[in-house]
Amino acid sequence: MKITLIGVGLIGGSMALKLKAKGLVSQVFGVDRNEEHLAEAKKLGIIDEALPLEKAVKSSDLIIIAIPVDSTAEILAQILDLVTDKQTVMDVGSTKAGIVQSVKTHPNRSRFVAFHPMWGTENSGPESALADSFSGRAAVICDAEDSAKDALNMVITIAENLDMHLMYMKAQDHDVHTAYISHISHITSYALANTVLEKEREEDKIFQLASSGFSSTVRLAKSHPEMWVPIFKQNKENILDVLNEHISQLRKFKSALEKDNDVLLEELIRNANRIRGILK
Amino acid sequence: MKITLIGVGLIGGSMALKLKAKGLVSQVFGVDRNEEHLAEAKKLGIIDEALPLEKAVKSSDLIIIAIPVDSTAEILAQILDLVTDKQTVMDVGSTKAGIVQSVKTHPNRSRFVAFHPMWGTENSGPESALADSFSGRAAVICDAEDSAKDALNMVITIAENLDMHLMYMKAQDHDVHTAYISHISHITSYALANTVLEKEREEDKIFQLASSGFSSTVRLAKSHPEMWVPIFKQNKENILDVLNEHISQLRKFKSALEKDNDVLLEELIRNANRIRGILK
Repeated sequence: MKITLIGVGLIGGSMALKLKAKGLVSQVFGVDRNEEHLAEAKKLGIIDEALPLEKAVKSSDLIIIAIPVDSTAEILAQILDLVTDKQTVMDVGSTKAGIVQSVKTHPNRSRFVAFHPMWGTENSGPESALADSFSGRAAVICDAEDSAKDALNMVITIAENLDMHLMYMKAQDHDVHTAYISHISHITSYALANTVLEKEREEDKIFQLASSGFSSTVRLAKSHPEMWVPIFKQNKENILDVLNEHISQLRKFKSALEKDNDVLLEELIRNANRIRGILK
Repeated sequence: MKITLIGVGLIGGSMALKLKAKGLVSQVFGVDRNEEHLAEAKKLGIIDEALPLEKAVKSSDLIIIAIPVDSTAEILAQILDLVTDKQTVMDVGSTKAGIVQSVKTHPNRSRFVAFHPMWGTENSGPESALADSFSGRAAVICDAEDSAKDALNMVITIAENLDMHLMYMKAQDHDVHTAYISHISHITSYALANTVLEKEREEDKIFQLASSGFSSTVRLAKSHPEMWVPIFKQNKENILDVLNEHISQLRKFKSALEKDNDVLLEELIRNANRIRGILK
């Protein structure tokens, strides 16, 4: 099978490496605005050849769009214009409602499968790609009923070869869930980094004293704005709901502390401890 | 050398295992209100014998207090009452100002060294103890000038045998720094867990969709209130300062989102990204 990778960064690169290692994919064409990334991806064996968009798409069984979600929404209709009913297009974006909306009435809508692998790191670029990144993680297919059966089967095969377990949901529900279990974590992590950077000027002391706990909560603050500004914008309403709730939860801690209300403080912590039973 | 471990949990247990492995400590007496923990610690080779407080202290060269910070402040004077000028007492607490204040005028103050190893996990109890936990981490000694030279040298030897690098600071400064790089992380993590648990009732979906990013930011929310309520109370003023700043940083994200202010959103993220240069 031949595939086109639109965006040869962390996610696309990791997918290509794995699918090649599994023997499912024989050839990968790379499309990327960033020439350095293309050269790097070729050197790392992620892609076999860099091609212009149209030529790449026309030569491929499957087109994987792995670029920021705003660019995905812009380019998806253009790619669907190019494909036949023997080809499949999938994305990997962290938001889904805006992307499926962008091609809702497109005559080739059924060739597209909205996909989201639940994995990522604070790093980016082809040099961060790792073949085994996705193993054991969840992947979501949204609005499966709007995709052709063979296109869907193609993406199911991809997910299986990435060793991921699949979940199906509506694009709208997906965006609510990811606001809670992914997008808000990035905002809290950015805000925590800004809090410490704002108040603590002796940076050497942060570096030396920082415990593993701090590093863990602030890790996501290293994530790049090119990817995250578009996610926050596309999932704005859901994220604002969660952010308001989060600020109100922080205010409960503030009030408990200010009023020396040990009972409330302990109650808030015991409630949070319930996450232990849910997340391993 | 013989030591008494007051509190045979995660921190004390990890220290004892390492100091025994290094051959520095030949015998460990355990003191703990929790009989099960004492039995478990003996089974795991953390302690050699469970003894009553007074007998244990009188038989030891070094007494390590590894219990919650409120209990440390309560028991420290009582232990200093028992020791001679050949013995050393150290604690491992996450707050320092309250603890040093509690023995400021004690005639044996100089036998005490205020110590804080910058390591911990969301787990507790002797079964969580690991000999190599502290390797490569920072440890802080506070108000070193109030400790006798031989007591200080004893604790420096302990830190060296734990493979930690030492920093010296005032107890007051320590508490400001730890509010930023440890305590606030716990509050944001608890609040994030409570946010998700509050709004998201379909717990199976959280569990299955949760990415490594979410797990990372919410990991500390598993930490127990027995340890953290006393820390928050003892470092109340510093934590409230940081918490207010953190809420105001979150509000900046909220405002940028509400107003579709992409420039501010990107600026907030780029500023947070600076943590990449500071924390590895």
